[in-house]
Amino acid sequence: MELPSKLLENAVNEMSQLPGIGKRTALRLVLHLLKQPAEQTEILSSALTAMRNEIQFCKECHTISDDEICGICSNASRDKSIICVVEDVRDVMALENTGMFKGVYHVLGGKISPIEGIGPSQLKITSLVEKVKKGNVAEIIFALSSTMEGDTTNFYIYKQIKDFEIKTSTIARGIAVGDELEYADEVTLGRSLLNRIPFENSIKPY
Amino acid sequence: MELPSKLLENAVNEMSQLPGIGKRTALRLVLHLLKQPAEQTEILSSALTAMRNEIQFCKECHTISDDEICGICSNASRDKSIICVVEDVRDVMALENTGMFKGVYHVLGGKISPIEGIGPSQLKITSLVEKVKKGNVAEIIFALSSTMEGDTTNFYIYKQIKDFEIKTSTIARGIAVGDELEYADEVTLGRSLLNRIPFENSIKPY
Repeated sequence: MELPSKLLENAVNEMSQLPGIGKRTALRLVLHLLKQPAEQTEILSSALTAMRNEIQFCKECHTISDDEICGICSNASRDKSIICVVEDVRDVMALENTGMFKGVYHVLGGKISPIEGIGPSQLKITSLVEKVKKGNVAEIIFALSSTMEGDTTNFYIYKQIKDFEIKTSTIARGIAVGDELEYADEVTLGRSLLNRIPFENSIKPY
Repeated sequence: MELPSKLLENAVNEMSQLPGIGKRTALRLVLHLLKQPAEQTEILSSALTAMRNEIQFCKECHTISDDEICGICSNASRDKSIICVVEDVRDVMALENTGMFKGVYHVLGGKISPIEGIGPSQLKITSLVEKVKKGNVAEIIFALSSTMEGDTTNFYIYKQIKDFEIKTSTIARGIAVGDELEYADEVTLGRSLLNRIPFENSIKPY
C-alpha cells in the first residue's frame, strides 16, 4: 500500500503494530483522527503515554493498580491464604465480576510460550513460590486458560510447590452454562463426565 | 467494565473513541502496549500527533500530501481537464492502483450526510465549482460510493455545474468482475442491463 504522505505512512505503520490491526484498518483509524479536532489526537496520545510511563503494579499480586498495593490485596476481608493464579488483569476483572471469589490473586503477566519467546523468568513465578515458602498459603487455584501454554505454565508452577503442604486446584472445565451438548468438543465433554459433581451441588443457588 | 486503574481507564476510553474499537478491544490493545517496551508507545503517540498537526492537504485537489501541491496535481503528464470527484484519500489510492486514470482528482473529504451532521459547507464543493467556472474543465467523473449519501452529494454538485458546458459522468455500476450473477442484488443487475456496453468493448485488453 503506497501512501501519499510520509507522516500518514508513519502513523499507519505504528498503528498497525497493534495486535489485530492491519494496514487497512490502521489507515481507517488514522483518517478518522484527521477528521476529528486535533485535540482528540492530543488526548489519545497523552493518555497512552501517561498510562505506559506512570502505571504501577501491585507489589503483592502484580495486577495493574494506581497504588502500591491494589484494592483487593489491601482489603482486610479478603482471605490472603487462598491465591488464584491468573494470566493478566482481564482475568482478575472477569473473576471479580462473578462475585464468587473471596481470596486474592497472583497475576503472572502471561503464559510460558516458547513460540512467542516467553520463558518462566519473564513471568511473576518466583514471587508466587516465595509466598508459598513463607507458609501462609492454604490453597493455590490455577485459573489460566485451558491451552497448551496454560497447562505448561500450570505444571511448571505445580512442580515447584507440590512438596509444600498446600491444596492445589484448577477451575472446573466443562460445558458452559447455556451451551448445547452436541456442539461441545469431545475433550471438554469427556472431562465434564469424569469430573461430574453431586447433583445437589448443581442446584445450589448461585 | 470497571478497571482497576484511572490511567488504564483513560487510555481505554480514548482508544475506544476510534471507529470499530469497543472497550474490550481497546483494553486488549492497551494491555499489549503495556507488555511492549515504553518506546513503542512513545513512537506511536508522537507519530499520531505529528501526523495530526503537521499533515498538509494539496491546494489543488485537497488530498493528503507532504507538499503544497500533491504528486498527481504537479505531474505535467496528467490531464487537468478531467477531474474525478472522490470522497477521501483511500479512493485516490484505489483508483491510482488501477493505472487507468490519467486525469486529476478532487477530494471532497466526505459525503453529505444529515445523520452524521455533515452538510455541503463542510465538504470541498465550492472549490470544485470554482474550477468549473474558470472554464478549463472538460469532464467531471463522479466516483463516490453508491449509497444514498453518495448519490445525494453527486446530485448536489451536479445541480451547480450542469449549466456549464462540460461532460459529467459517473463510474459504471454493475456486476463485479469474477462475481456470480445469482448473488447480485436486483438494482445492480438491473442497472448493468440498462447500461449494457457493446460486446467489442468488453473484450478489449485491460
